[in-house]
Amino acid sequence: MKKQNVSDTVIRRLPRYYRYLDDLHVKGIVRISSSTLGEKMGITASQIRQDLSCFGEFGQQGYGYNVDELRTEIGHILGVDNQHRLIILGVGNLGHALMQNFRFRDAGFLLEAAFDIDPRLIGTEVAGVPILDYARLEEFIPVHRPDVAVLTVSQAVAQSTADHLIELGIRGFWNFTNVELSTSVENVRFEDVHFADSLLTLSYRITER
Amino acid sequence: MKKQNVSDTVIRRLPRYYRYLDDLHVKGIVRISSSTLGEKMGITASQIRQDLSCFGEFGQQGYGYNVDELRTEIGHILGVDNQHRLIILGVGNLGHALMQNFRFRDAGFLLEAAFDIDPRLIGTEVAGVPILDYARLEEFIPVHRPDVAVLTVSQAVAQSTADHLIELGIRGFWNFTNVELSTSVENVRFEDVHFADSLLTLSYRITER
Repeated sequence: MKKQNVSDTVIRRLPRYYRYLDDLHVKGIVRISSSTLGEKMGITASQIRQDLSCFGEFGQQGYGYNVDELRTEIGHILGVDNQHRLIILGVGNLGHALMQNFRFRDAGFLLEAAFDIDPRLIGTEVAGVPILDYARLEEFIPVHRPDVAVLTVSQAVAQSTADHLIELGIRGFWNFTNVELSTSVENVRFEDVHFADSLLTLSYRITER
Repeated sequence: MKKQNVSDTVIRRLPRYYRYLDDLHVKGIVRISSSTLGEKMGITASQIRQDLSCFGEFGQQGYGYNVDELRTEIGHILGVDNQHRLIILGVGNLGHALMQNFRFRDAGFLLEAAFDIDPRLIGTEVAGVPILDYARLEEFIPVHRPDVAVLTVSQAVAQSTADHLIELGIRGFWNFTNVELSTSVENVRFEDVHFADSLLTLSYRITER
């Protein structure tokens, strides 16, 4: 079902569809029209139909979408049923916050371990997840083969940590460091979280008035 | 220069333009063509021209864009020179991480204070910003008139905290709680940070292969 060359904009809307559909599902709503879904999400019905057409045929004329079916289908496209494995690098405040509050399972990820160099943290646990010595990465990765590393290290060591992890075989990075990471190795994906983009959007909206 | 009815998609791309242009500016690059900028950002040159045309005329045929000028102009559209005032509600790990690491000033925001109910935190400072007693909000807000509240409280109190702040006059919310907030009061803006959207995008990309 997955087509080639789906635009970045459409890909980035998929998690939003998933989130809204999941919310409707939890609320017990069985079906929804593209126009009602569009209203909720602030996009047009035709945009929704166009986005979804990238991945197959969904919905029925006059009926709309079956919420649970579409949610399951989009979840599948996103890979939430793939059970990716994930490790966290750097257990400062942000790493700690993610370990404690973020629902990795809901996104289809299994958080296996966190790594740090601070001896006060090594050997402890947060929310049932062990914090291991950064020096043990090289033995850990070949055995556990995590798919994704969450980078919550300091900016100064962001690139060198990524390089080390790439060398050990990691290909997916959820990057909170605000450093633009780069590599010459193929098929490495950096997904950067830019808090500022969101705050600037808010700035625009409150400046508008 | 600011036009009405600019689409949400275009608004959300503005901070990215700003970020890329700022980076080019820091690197000493004086001008750039729409095609080179597009390549960097993963969008087409015509998309860039179309986006920017929502706000006025930028760039020159055959010359491209003056990096610093366009950066300044987009910053102005985003309101980064407005010096919005901001407070943080809830100094758990995430609130702490933002206070310590996030460059509010770069986004045009002045972080004035944080609020919590934990007596061990009240009266202390993080990165020079005081943590005050939540009970003092009602005297603080009319005096300091912050524009935006950052919500890093627990989910259980997210809506009630927002309601309280709205009552006190706050109209902008940077919401990290993952709770869909709502209000019947007009002109209130909720900007939600959904970490999961970003992780699911990464999931899609590593599933793709």
